[in-house]
Amino acid sequence: MSDRKHGVAIPARLVPFPASVSPEARASLARLVSEEGEPLNASYTMPLPEDHAGWMAVKAVADGQYATAVKGLAGTLRSSVETIQNGDVTIHVATPETMLKADFAYIDFHGGALVFGGGDACRAQARMQADQHGAVCYGVDYRMPPEHPYPAALDDAMAAYRHVLKSHVPSRIIVGGRSAGGNLAAAMLLRAKAEALPMPAGLILLSPQVDLTESGDSFQVNRTVDVVLPGSLMRNNLLYAGGADLSHPYLSPLFGDLTGLPPTFLQSGTRDLFLSNTVRMHRALRRDGVDAELHVFEGMPHGGFMGNTPEDRDLAEEIFRFVSRISGEASR
Amino acid sequence: MSDRKHGVAIPARLVPFPASVSPEARASLARLVSEEGEPLNASYTMPLPEDHAGWMAVKAVADGQYATAVKGLAGTLRSSVETIQNGDVTIHVATPETMLKADFAYIDFHGGALVFGGGDACRAQARMQADQHGAVCYGVDYRMPPEHPYPAALDDAMAAYRHVLKSHVPSRIIVGGRSAGGNLAAAMLLRAKAEALPMPAGLILLSPQVDLTESGDSFQVNRTVDVVLPGSLMRNNLLYAGGADLSHPYLSPLFGDLTGLPPTFLQSGTRDLFLSNTVRMHRALRRDGVDAELHVFEGMPHGGFMGNTPEDRDLAEEIFRFVSRISGEASR
Repeated sequence: MSDRKHGVAIPARLVPFPASVSPEARASLARLVSEEGEPLNASYTMPLPEDHAGWMAVKAVADGQYATAVKGLAGTLRSSVETIQNGDVTIHVATPETMLKADFAYIDFHGGALVFGGGDACRAQARMQADQHGAVCYGVDYRMPPEHPYPAALDDAMAAYRHVLKSHVPSRIIVGGRSAGGNLAAAMLLRAKAEALPMPAGLILLSPQVDLTESGDSFQVNRTVDVVLPGSLMRNNLLYAGGADLSHPYLSPLFGDLTGLPPTFLQSGTRDLFLSNTVRMHRALRRDGVDAELHVFEGMPHGGFMGNTPEDRDLAEEIFRFVSRISGEASR
Repeated sequence: MSDRKHGVAIPARLVPFPASVSPEARASLARLVSEEGEPLNASYTMPLPEDHAGWMAVKAVADGQYATAVKGLAGTLRSSVETIQNGDVTIHVATPETMLKADFAYIDFHGGALVFGGGDACRAQARMQADQHGAVCYGVDYRMPPEHPYPAALDDAMAAYRHVLKSHVPSRIIVGGRSAGGNLAAAMLLRAKAEALPMPAGLILLSPQVDLTESGDSFQVNRTVDVVLPGSLMRNNLLYAGGADLSHPYLSPLFGDLTGLPPTFLQSGTRDLFLSNTVRMHRALRRDGVDAELHVFEGMPHGGFMGNTPEDRDLAEEIFRFVSRISGEASR
């Protein structure tokens, strides 16, 4: 291969909003770009902070955005919620109005690029999951940088898992997370295995950030095609790692020995910056003998279409079906 | 949405060959682009024919390329093969040296953009499939345009299926195809259902061309990113249709009622022009209650890495496992 031959030259172009998704999904994509077709996402257009104070300011802005989103949800949530403190970790325990799965626990790790999304957003999400699954949901409000770099979040994940194991048999526990939450859910299981804890019944990884080195191909191909997550999160990843090796399986579970992990549900979208993360994790799980199923949604960016679109509902139904199968309940 | 807001503006860029695939797979991608990073594939760089004589000339060139590829395989094939004529359809019946699956039949539809890939290439592929599965393989050498437009190929597919049904119970038959072959495999089952024929035990769709209207998002996002299939095949599709409606389920099975189809294995790659075809078909099958599993390979273009790469072997192993499960045999 010659020195010049490094890749494929892609000409500039306008990639139209897909005609092959629902009108709601198309509108959701259109809301996220400027009149000139550029992604509006702040993490793409704004310079990232240089220091602790800068990060704290960015976190405040992001948390404000999450808080606004959460307020919009408040009227729709039916489950009750109690917030408990277990050593260093805060856990929001949401109990559904109608219990469909007795003795069952869903442990949820929120997303937010390993820096954002805690507090009220995490609490609301625990209630959403409890509503959706008709099961108790433990929303893990793990500590994050810049105040608490690695391994604080993973320590908190372990503490939360040990806490839930006290009141539930492993075969009645499912662990899951979206984006950064998928990182923690998978890393937590690798560490639980190393510490000889039992595996839960299932694992749910939604567009998971399982490779903090960002070595996957979709980090190139879907750069700016994904309007939710238009580019690299490396600055966040380095802040999170706090000097630890990004390729260690506790930081990038894609590179771990996945043998013995429970049945796993993986989701991504064709426009997802983390498409490669997801499909590589699916292949790695299957290579290691894990029962893993992959769902990739047409034209979907990172994290779904972010609304009540038919595609988001289809995904929710698939997750419900997986949880029901794992928990031994009939599908609705 | 304003008139200007039609999509996402992607700047020109060099998409590097992925570091996240095997060296063999990376070399395979590099062989398919020029020093300037442009796809070398003739269907992208050469003007398509305007008339019957032009198509026949292109077919002769393509068949010559297939013949060369087939010659390279000849020494590695172990199964025997017999070519039979059944009415209008030619079928290559390959019998493996070591029969692993008694009474079992694999019906294979070759790829080639609905215009190419018949004859010796189809015959060799039948032998490859017989070797791989340890089962009898029926390679359907269906008629193609420009001499024989739709519905000739589908008629031939039906004739082949009826032929195999005479000697095998449906629960011992699997139907599959790559690319255009995936179109015919799926369309044939829709027509078999309409004609009250029994369904086979399973369906294998490898990067399937299930939407001749090319409405999927990856036709935009992966244009020229996929160095095997860099752009539209619409000219082929129109030649194949011969005036029939491209969106009819017998031409674009993605738009059909898929209820009652057998367990289905689907494969694509993150760089595949047909990624959307594949993931949309997966979702449509699941929407219609079909047991369908999806496998998407990192950085893989249309049709695989076209060689003896670890990724191609991983895919072959997955297909073998699926066929073994469907046929009730133990996995190796």
